[in-house]
Amino acid sequence: MSVVTLGVRDLIRAREFYEALGWSCLPAQPGSNISFFTLDGVVLALYGWDELAADAELPTVTQSPGFRGIALAHNEPSEADVDRAYEEFLSAGASVVKRPTAAEWGGYSGYVSDLDGHLWEVAYNPFDDWA
Amino acid sequence: MSVVTLGVRDLIRAREFYEALGWSCLPAQPGSNISFFTLDGVVLALYGWDELAADAELPTVTQSPGFRGIALAHNEPSEADVDRAYEEFLSAGASVVKRPTAAEWGGYSGYVSDLDGHLWEVAYNPFDDWA
Repeated sequence: MSVVTLGVRDLIRAREFYEALGWSCLPAQPGSNISFFTLDGVVLALYGWDELAADAELPTVTQSPGFRGIALAHNEPSEADVDRAYEEFLSAGASVVKRPTAAEWGGYSGYVSDLDGHLWEVAYNPFDDWA
Repeated sequence: MSVVTLGVRDLIRAREFYEALGWSCLPAQPGSNISFFTLDGVVLALYGWDELAADAELPTVTQSPGFRGIALAHNEPSEADVDRAYEEFLSAGASVVKRPTAAEWGGYSGYVSDLDGHLWEVAYNPFDDWA
């Protein structure tokens, strides 16, 4: 997996949201309608919702605010870091889905949704080094 | 972004699908209901569709087969490699969404959906080194 592309309704606002998390956006080409964030090992791309659907030749459907079958995770090295990162997501404009809490599997995690309803888990996993 | 978790209806079949692509699954703990694939720089996790929704405390909705607002990309180093990888996805059980073709942006790409309708782009991008 090299790139994860999120469909967004307002590219400028979406880019500002992820920049507010401290993530670095590659300089855009003049007239470009796509933004790329180079994260550790994977690229996060933001592209128009309808344009992404059209590129795949899929009909655009109006998305319900509910579950879409996928979650992106942002891991942190401690519970306190999860709390701090969770607040950063909210400050950037994310919506609360589930506030951080101890998880059955022994970790600590919460969920937010971004400006376009994409689901992010903010997690501490004591059993791995994915943070 | 450390982990991308896909909700799946049949964990065993979904794991077999991604293993058929040659991706390596971490050994499962006894009784585990989640599978992890360590890709370059990011972990792909497979987890029950309803369980993932429940973990985020979101209502499970029946998904339409249409666009869900996100695409995962698998990049290859040439057009021929895209064609080969595209056929591998199909052999593993993926469905054709859009067969590989020259893209307006100068690359070459196609789309498939996996067993649970998750959208994957298979792409060659002559302007980057993401393959």
